Amino acid sequence: MASPQTIWYNYDKNLVETIDQRYLPFQNLIVEISTLDEARRAITGMIVRGAPLIGVTAAFGMYLAARNFSGADFLADMNKAADWLKSSRPTAVNLAFAVDEALSVISEKCSIPQNNQQLFAFAETLKQREIEFSNKIGVHGLELIKATSETKKGKPVQILTHCNAGRLATIELGTATAPIYLAHLAGIAVHVWVDETRPRNQGARLTAWELGEAGIPYTIIPDNTGGHLMQHGMVDMVIVGSDRTTLNGDVANKIGTYLKALAAADNGIPFYVALPSTTIDWNLNDGVAEIPIEQRDDSEVSVMEGLLGNQVHQFRIIPEKSPVANYGFDVTPARLVTGLVTERGICKASREGILELFPEKRLKND
Amino acid sequence: MASPQTIWYNYDKNLVETIDQRYLPFQNLIVEISTLDEARRAITGMIVRGAPLIGVTAAFGMYLAARNFSGADFLADMNKAADWLKSSRPTAVNLAFAVDEALSVISEKCSIPQNNQQLFAFAETLKQREIEFSNKIGVHGLELIKATSETKKGKPVQILTHCNAGRLATIELGTATAPIYLAHLAGIAVHVWVDETRPRNQGARLTAWELGEAGIPYTIIPDNTGGHLMQHGMVDMVIVGSDRTTLNGDVANKIGTYLKALAAADNGIPFYVALPSTTIDWNLNDGVAEIPIEQRDDSEVSVMEGLLGNQVHQFRIIPEKSPVANYGFDVTPARLVTGLVTERGICKASREGILELFPEKRLKND
Repeated sequence: MASPQTIWYNYDKNLVETIDQRYLPFQNLIVEISTLDEARRAITGMIVRGAPLIGVTAAFGMYLAARNFSGADFLADMNKAADWLKSSRPTAVNLAFAVDEALSVISEKCSIPQNNQQLFAFAETLKQREIEFSNKIGVHGLELIKATSETKKGKPVQILTHCNAGRLATIELGTATAPIYLAHLAGIAVHVWVDETRPRNQGARLTAWELGEAGIPYTIIPDNTGGHLMQHGMVDMVIVGSDRTTLNGDVANKIGTYLKALAAADNGIPFYVALPSTTIDWNLNDGVAEIPIEQRDDSEVSVMEGLLGNQVHQFRIIPEKSPVANYGFDVTPARLVTGLVTERGICKASREGILELFPEKRLKND
Repeated sequence: MASPQTIWYNYDKNLVETIDQRYLPFQNLIVEISTLDEARRAITGMIVRGAPLIGVTAAFGMYLAARNFSGADFLADMNKAADWLKSSRPTAVNLAFAVDEALSVISEKCSIPQNNQQLFAFAETLKQREIEFSNKIGVHGLELIKATSETKKGKPVQILTHCNAGRLATIELGTATAPIYLAHLAGIAVHVWVDETRPRNQGARLTAWELGEAGIPYTIIPDNTGGHLMQHGMVDMVIVGSDRTTLNGDVANKIGTYLKALAAADNGIPFYVALPSTTIDWNLNDGVAEIPIEQRDDSEVSVMEGLLGNQVHQFRIIPEKSPVANYGFDVTPARLVTGLVTERGICKASREGILELFPEKRLKND
């Protein structure tokens, strides 16, 4: 792999560095983040994306904010910084959780330098936690791939995924891709159908790039293709990620996920969602009604990026006057989800299933 | 509208002319077809597309073939020409029907010039028939839109369509779009959600262009978006076309249609397929198992066309080494189809429903 992690603190320069995901796979650039504003811009501009990575970036953003604040208004300033960060992307819940958790490590009893240190430590801890969650999701999901592999008589397990819930969406290993990476390392033959994922093409650009780097066989398909493949027995399982999961098991993920879940259900194909518990919104019980769905800029639909010769350009693919709508996510109802693959194991996409794995939340909620 | 028809015979030049649909909406070019090979190339290269227009182009292709043949081998040559044309695109059944019907007008008792005249007359007759079918589909489908409009209290009827089953897919008026054009002319407020329709973007390029020319409100959406809109009550009905329909009501249409049908069914939204009976394959009873699905060139997925400044360019949107799959169509099972809108009226997507409208086929089949 090109880089072992997707975000790290550069101690020489005293700033955070991350991969600029807007330019992959055509250019592999590192971007520096040294202020709150730069952290927020990295999130809104999708320099970083993917719920776990957004959360960690926001945590570092809180630290970067803190070290520029001083004096009597420190707490008020940090609360403002938190709101400013949280408003950057409405659907991914990790963002709000990370920012609130960062706020909670600040103590009025500590000096500003002490608080800064606490905030830095929290960002690094959150990062380690996400790495650990990805690893554990991988271990649990691997069992699903293994079991399917045993029925395939040596033929590759055919896995369809949507968008990028890979290494680039997390710190290492990914969520939806973690079981795939571990299966590949374990010598199990896998092949991944990679949904292009319009309008931003995170599948064709990021997931394909990631899998290629790791030497895992894959094929890019238009988002329209998955249903046909499933009708013809060419998909053994679907694994996707989640940007926010409700307590009853509804899953907000990249727009189009719901359509693949419908096709999987119609063809009796298991549909798994891999997610760290940091994406579970313990307060929500109806994803379609309650999860806010981000609307993004028209230009993501009307303009596309590509290579002309060796140069990257942006091209208009529809006439100037054409109206466009651009919803970032949709919600897959729990009834279409075969199982949630979490860091604690696999459970049914239901309140009962989730609370069995996370009984401490039952105490709070019941 | 820019041009009243999509294909016509130019009597000054003694050749067929059509719109080169590969360059719309960026350039509106007319292409000349004067030989069998040019007719076939127009079909394979998608200069023309859409089942009805493909059928008419093939019929003209048979005439163009005939006028270049002479002598003793005329019949054998025409049979070869027919096979050559029929092999150009496997899914659209109009093509085979048009070519076989053209063959059947050839008579051994007639001179070659007489046969040529017969073939020309047949192509013009088929063209008139497709125009008439579109008009009638429009009239029947209009009733559906009218009825929905009455429940909307002046708000526009929200119609989602996939690909281009519009004027450009036929000769005039379209199939899926015919009811929409007539509703607009009748002063009924409509708004069309236009699926982009990857990989060739016939929705964003052709349907959007057509609707814009006609002054009908529309919004382009990525193919991933329709499910979300349906979950949130933003779609009143879906109308799509068909490239081949089985006698039991299964519908082969542009890849991705099946996913929209699943979402419509899941949200209780009517899903209509508008089709002239020339797309019905009276010999087939299981669309998923029996309709051949065309696989097209990788470049349709990996390369896209767009504007850089005012210049149209083709640009790569994925790395060179990425493997791609490109299936042209999928099959929507009859159970997901609310009704078929044909030139004879609206029927259930079932053997019984279809045969009620086309009882003469019952005699042949039962």
